[in-house]
Amino acid sequence: MNKPIGVIDSGVGGLTVVHELMRQLPKEKLIYLGDTLRCPYGPRPEHEVVQFTWDMVEFLLEKDVKMIVVACNTATAYTLKELQDHLSIPVVGVIQPGARAAIKNTKNNHVGIIGTEGTIRSNAYIEALQYIKSDLDINALACPLFVPMVEQGILSGLQAEEIVKESLQPLMRYKDDMDSLILGCTHYPLIREVIQKVLGPQVTLISSSEETARETSAILEFHQLLNTGNEQTNHQFYTTGELEIFTEITKSIFNSSIDNLQAVTIEKAVIARN
Amino acid sequence: MNKPIGVIDSGVGGLTVVHELMRQLPKEKLIYLGDTLRCPYGPRPEHEVVQFTWDMVEFLLEKDVKMIVVACNTATAYTLKELQDHLSIPVVGVIQPGARAAIKNTKNNHVGIIGTEGTIRSNAYIEALQYIKSDLDINALACPLFVPMVEQGILSGLQAEEIVKESLQPLMRYKDDMDSLILGCTHYPLIREVIQKVLGPQVTLISSSEETARETSAILEFHQLLNTGNEQTNHQFYTTGELEIFTEITKSIFNSSIDNLQAVTIEKAVIARN
Repeated sequence: MNKPIGVIDSGVGGLTVVHELMRQLPKEKLIYLGDTLRCPYGPRPEHEVVQFTWDMVEFLLEKDVKMIVVACNTATAYTLKELQDHLSIPVVGVIQPGARAAIKNTKNNHVGIIGTEGTIRSNAYIEALQYIKSDLDINALACPLFVPMVEQGILSGLQAEEIVKESLQPLMRYKDDMDSLILGCTHYPLIREVIQKVLGPQVTLISSSEETARETSAILEFHQLLNTGNEQTNHQFYTTGELEIFTEITKSIFNSSIDNLQAVTIEKAVIARN
Repeated sequence: MNKPIGVIDSGVGGLTVVHELMRQLPKEKLIYLGDTLRCPYGPRPEHEVVQFTWDMVEFLLEKDVKMIVVACNTATAYTLKELQDHLSIPVVGVIQPGARAAIKNTKNNHVGIIGTEGTIRSNAYIEALQYIKSDLDINALACPLFVPMVEQGILSGLQAEEIVKESLQPLMRYKDDMDSLILGCTHYPLIREVIQKVLGPQVTLISSSEETARETSAILEFHQLLNTGNEQTNHQFYTTGELEIFTEITKSIFNSSIDNLQAVTIEKAVIARN
């Protein structure tokens, strides 16, 4: 089916999901909206995240998308169920695919999660994991500095390493037992190498971005919504923030610049929801 | 939801899917039916495989299953679409999950597939891969000796190695380019180590069993059909063949014997299908 897939995030993190969607579903057209202006969502109260997410969803629905990928862990934690209940198109979040991949990967049932304050505070990953499998040791840690660091373009180097080392300190004593760590924020794959270096090679990092693209493919196919035409290149990108920083970061993700980037305003009065 | 998941296979191969379902979805109750009496399906004509598969499906529907996993590549190749069109419960096959995992895993877009004659002749994997991504080098090879070998319990040792080496000969010249090989038959994970040894460590083996369990989890959750009760141990196993061989092979898969194994007859007149 020839309609686009809509992807939303609080900023640029969801572009790692876009990158994987392009790789794993090259025939799909994507429309991305990053709410960079109001990023980060992590420290915001739940009602704000819910309202901002609906603002983004309404914007995408006007573009006639066939599916929505909530490529932001904080937004998934607070809104996925509500979106799935209210929308007639499939909605996929980033938490469940990461949880499922961790369960598939772990051999010793000891799983770690890092994410924003909002994601960790919501317990969404722990609930998603235990919903499926009770018998797991789980250590969760909020890393509030990672999103601002990435949004400023600090992705490697000594400063990045220092911040990561400092932030992950509380997990270090588990690093030889915990065999799987969920990168529970779509910004984190951008600093994956730094995280891997700090923790060592014995911990498998699970990218919620990769896994979400995989499950998007499964859900689309199950609903017979896959586009079977030619490979797509005319994706559209929208940001509520400044074009320059967005462009900068997309370059480091895609190794090329993107066309079709536009600045938009999406802030509205609260939307009626049936 | 407290109903069981039904799993069908031509013989014992689907038990590798069961093993992964137990590991990745420990709260789900499973009912397995292996049509050992009429195994292998691989060399049979399409209309026979279709009829035998419907025999198995009817048996499971009487057990009030909430979902059916077609844990046999040959049956998936010939019947998945028909089953999905006719049944009101979700049906998952083993081909699409393996294809999707290969697309996610490959870095150089060179993918191999091994399977039964029926699976390879049907082109089902090549179609599933190209449906999603056109730009792939694909080498497919039928290995007709693997299923009979596994059903006889020959899973390792010199004889197994000889058969595998001989069978994989046509793929050997690709083994340094092809970075992902789909084990396109649920029997093959039982001889995974032998295959890996013959091909070398540079080829990632994709188990359709592991990947199918993962997608079963995703589809169940998407349809809000996950069982959230306690972990299950009272699975039921049925075979149309001899109990002894079945018991023998389950031991080598589960490292323990199974309870609740019964012999059944499912052969019937062709079933009316709307």
